[in-house]
Amino acid sequence: MTAATRPIRLLRVDLARRSWTVEDLPDDLVRAFVGGRGLGAALLRREGRHRLGPADPGAPVVVCTGPLTGTRAPTASRTSLTGLSPLTNTVFDANSGGFFGIRLRRAGFDALWLEGVSDAPVTVSVTPRGVSFEDAAPLWGRGNREAQSALAGGSNRSWAALTIGPAGENGAKLANIAHGDRFFGRGGLGAWMGARRLKAVRVRGDGPVPVADPEGLAFVAGECRKQLGAHPVTSRGLPAFGTAVLMNVINAVGALPARNFRDSGCERADRLSGEALRDRLTVGRKACPGCPIACGRKIALDGRTGPGPEFETLWALGANLGLDDLEAVARLNRVAADLGLDTVSAGATIAAARELFETGDLGWDPLERGAEGVADLLAEMAEVRGRGALLAHGSRRLAEAAGRPDAAMVSKGLELPAYDPRGCQGQGLAYATSNRGGCHLRAYLVAPEILATPKRVDRFAWSGKAGLTIVAQNLNAAVDSLVLCRFTGFALGDGHYARLLKAVTGWDVDGQELMTAGERIYTLERLVNLERGFGRGDDRLPRRLTHEPVARGPSAGHTVHLDEMLDEYYRFRGWDLRGVPTARKLEQLGLGPSPF
Amino acid sequence: MTAATRPIRLLRVDLARRSWTVEDLPDDLVRAFVGGRGLGAALLRREGRHRLGPADPGAPVVVCTGPLTGTRAPTASRTSLTGLSPLTNTVFDANSGGFFGIRLRRAGFDALWLEGVSDAPVTVSVTPRGVSFEDAAPLWGRGNREAQSALAGGSNRSWAALTIGPAGENGAKLANIAHGDRFFGRGGLGAWMGARRLKAVRVRGDGPVPVADPEGLAFVAGECRKQLGAHPVTSRGLPAFGTAVLMNVINAVGALPARNFRDSGCERADRLSGEALRDRLTVGRKACPGCPIACGRKIALDGRTGPGPEFETLWALGANLGLDDLEAVARLNRVAADLGLDTVSAGATIAAARELFETGDLGWDPLERGAEGVADLLAEMAEVRGRGALLAHGSRRLAEAAGRPDAAMVSKGLELPAYDPRGCQGQGLAYATSNRGGCHLRAYLVAPEILATPKRVDRFAWSGKAGLTIVAQNLNAAVDSLVLCRFTGFALGDGHYARLLKAVTGWDVDGQELMTAGERIYTLERLVNLERGFGRGDDRLPRRLTHEPVARGPSAGHTVHLDEMLDEYYRFRGWDLRGVPTARKLEQLGLGPSPF
Repeated sequence: MTAATRPIRLLRVDLARRSWTVEDLPDDLVRAFVGGRGLGAALLRREGRHRLGPADPGAPVVVCTGPLTGTRAPTASRTSLTGLSPLTNTVFDANSGGFFGIRLRRAGFDALWLEGVSDAPVTVSVTPRGVSFEDAAPLWGRGNREAQSALAGGSNRSWAALTIGPAGENGAKLANIAHGDRFFGRGGLGAWMGARRLKAVRVRGDGPVPVADPEGLAFVAGECRKQLGAHPVTSRGLPAFGTAVLMNVINAVGALPARNFRDSGCERADRLSGEALRDRLTVGRKACPGCPIACGRKIALDGRTGPGPEFETLWALGANLGLDDLEAVARLNRVAADLGLDTVSAGATIAAARELFETGDLGWDPLERGAEGVADLLAEMAEVRGRGALLAHGSRRLAEAAGRPDAAMVSKGLELPAYDPRGCQGQGLAYATSNRGGCHLRAYLVAPEILATPKRVDRFAWSGKAGLTIVAQNLNAAVDSLVLCRFTGFALGDGHYARLLKAVTGWDVDGQELMTAGERIYTLERLVNLERGFGRGDDRLPRRLTHEPVARGPSAGHTVHLDEMLDEYYRFRGWDLRGVPTARKLEQLGLGPSPF
Repeated sequence: MTAATRPIRLLRVDLARRSWTVEDLPDDLVRAFVGGRGLGAALLRREGRHRLGPADPGAPVVVCTGPLTGTRAPTASRTSLTGLSPLTNTVFDANSGGFFGIRLRRAGFDALWLEGVSDAPVTVSVTPRGVSFEDAAPLWGRGNREAQSALAGGSNRSWAALTIGPAGENGAKLANIAHGDRFFGRGGLGAWMGARRLKAVRVRGDGPVPVADPEGLAFVAGECRKQLGAHPVTSRGLPAFGTAVLMNVINAVGALPARNFRDSGCERADRLSGEALRDRLTVGRKACPGCPIACGRKIALDGRTGPGPEFETLWALGANLGLDDLEAVARLNRVAADLGLDTVSAGATIAAARELFETGDLGWDPLERGAEGVADLLAEMAEVRGRGALLAHGSRRLAEAAGRPDAAMVSKGLELPAYDPRGCQGQGLAYATSNRGGCHLRAYLVAPEILATPKRVDRFAWSGKAGLTIVAQNLNAAVDSLVLCRFTGFALGDGHYARLLKAVTGWDVDGQELMTAGERIYTLERLVNLERGFGRGDDRLPRRLTHEPVARGPSAGHTVHLDEMLDEYYRFRGWDLRGVPTARKLEQLGLGPSPF
């Protein structure tokens, strides 16, 4: 078998036994679930591991590349990671750009399964010759910056590493996983690593990545790059301002949450905008490998250059907390990155604590000492110590402990990001039906509702949003499985993606098959959550968003009409009114007999 | 070598590798540290494990019997257990009466070392032939009652078992370990077991227990029984009323803490007294094996007979919370026992939460629904869920999270028990210098200060209390190492204990050697804590007790004069003013060169 068509290889590592094996995955499994996110969920469910608790030693994390990873397809440097979330208890995947997935494939492996609990801090090192286990005690307690530098910097530059900071080590359910200087941000999978005493996984490899039709790929990839170079978001907005380009846009329409979603709009958001970031801190752009967009910012601050804050961070640790000092928020971003805390959930949890203080449900003010106090609080959260212990596991647990569960701005326990759905109804449905909890990355209805791309739809209407949400969820599931960057979706459609996939795999695949794969993946994830005990009652938004109209600004008077959209959503999905896929739908997608 | 003089045998079990080995311990180690608590600390430090964090897989728990365990010495059915406390981070031992230690010795082992993390719920079974590992998945999630019954009840009655309930499984730092229907109560060692997925350890054995001079032992044991039968506390108070005999006595002198130590005395304490317990619920007495005192109560409640509440529980879950319905508090005792929560710390933490509610530092009232609400809260604490998640790890973490660290009535993170030291100065010094945190079992100055046994001393005086405290701490360290029940100390002195030890071991040992062993053990534990980062600054009481005088009642106007007592205490101990044993003292005790 040539490199062009070799089977997809799963490397399985047992951290308890310090052993490893290699498995060639069946072709039909790979074709049905593509790779990345789809393959991760399928592998999890194939062995029934999806029924375990996140803390169970048998509950794995699977790092999956996709068929495009490491090829010349644009943005094909993303790695996907799937597990059971300590924060939400749902199935949870996250993906991130960097060298890990590329090097994993170049080492001859396409996916990496990690399970078991190591009895001492350990670094797992993968090379083409297999796996070795190294003592990570000297790195334990160190921040991501030092860990990345020790494992994948200097003379170790041929390595790519995933690491956790103190937050993950100490089991904070808001802990993320660092991948170079980017992150698998949400869902607390850093706590999964910490509980296994897995400080880091790194990989080195320089073999070929299989491509069936290199010339065809070069042609399609070129076409895709042209499209990315033509769309205003990917050719101008993101390159010029980074993701912070959204700050002023979202705020202008009254969809930027403030004060823990008690307001929808923020007077001084412009101080945290992409424009301000460009004018005051940015010294360059940073692209993930193989990406022509380069949305990453390089900033100079306090005599050091490094990654700048993303939009979500500027919101969560800035606008939503009423902090508007750009430099201070950029510093908090550095602090959180080094500690290994998800900035969105950490900021949202602090905002909830501030509300609880204002309403007399908490005896101390998390914002008493402004940004400096927030920095100290983040450190305590990462150490799960003192006041920080109350916030380290997220808004839901904080609000429940304070006796005010309504103060948690979450869906399925995941903190909502920087878009108030009362100003974009479809995004509300997308939050509520997201199978990893309240996030904007399952379906970004903000694009049609606010950014008018691919075309404008009425952001306050709820009729018809179910269909748009489902199409976006399915397409994104497919793109997350290839794995490509979400931002390509501004410029590319299912036809482009299918042609890339065809060139790389040799499969006779078209846009329709890819969309069906996306639906299969989304439905599989739904099955996993149903089997974990989730149901219609969990497809919810905080009561504040469905019952309390926005008080001021361009979205004033609106709430989210979730129930109206939800019935339609289930029907369009081919699910019954409990939110359970019908036997017919499962059969149609090749997902076997219904477990319900 | 005959059974009478066989070496002391340590059985070492690795939960990760599911392997075991047997080690004969050196005679000089055993003679220097006796057994039980002393041997546990010595074994921990011998391998440097005492420097690890409590969560480290290499941090063991050592179950130690003593030389008297399983012999006919009165109360010789106690087992000691030593580890690193998840709650206090100090070295921590606890002991409890029952069949485990007896059967362990009859199986041919004197101590059991457990380390490593199992990758699935497991029960460790020990027999004379060695160790087997059984799947504990069917018991995981079950309460102590069911677990004990499954493992050591019915046709399994030849087994004795240590188990954890849901609190331990879920890592609540207030989790205890059940031993039959009694407990290793304090310090959260149940969370240690849960983190290792160790649901239970059980043992079966019917071999002989080594005794050097059986006739001599029979004679001395008979003398001791006579003494126990003559002292009013062990012959009348405890047998007639159980430990609850203390309720009215302690309350009458204004030393019963109420409202989280904001009061010192409780109007309706008599409703929870030993007298009320006898009149309303008690149907019989229950003795640990080999004990002539039989302080345990058997009560009938809700159509079921079972163990009744101890004094500390009646206080912590009753008087200190302002609950005075004896039946309701007895029900809470049952709930906590089944969940596997330390009643003292759990009740104290709820009392702290109530204070935080009253002062506006917490948004909900833990006592809103009275005893019924407390029962629900205990369940949430055991599940580390909702409001209970905030309380599950004890008062210190609760109070810190609420921004009111002063509200935690703890020393070294352990919740203080049912004696307000403002009404018994020496007990205040005993709390502050206890090396497992705020507890009355290192030195019970309440005996001379309130119970006038062996003779009355002025309870409000602080001069001279250092010496009394040190003698009590040393003697208790020795008794905990034999292992005998603390209550024998009302009637027996170091001479009795030494004669029992001599008869069993054949050592030429007298009271002075035994007291020196106690001092050696106490000093060793101090070294462990010092090496863990504790120091003089941790020999503290809550500010409330040293700075806020009792407002009302027989102890009105008093605070604890801790600093005055502490300097004297260090000097008498042969420690410097940092609280570090001098090199000369270490040499004198044979504890090697000073690590400081």
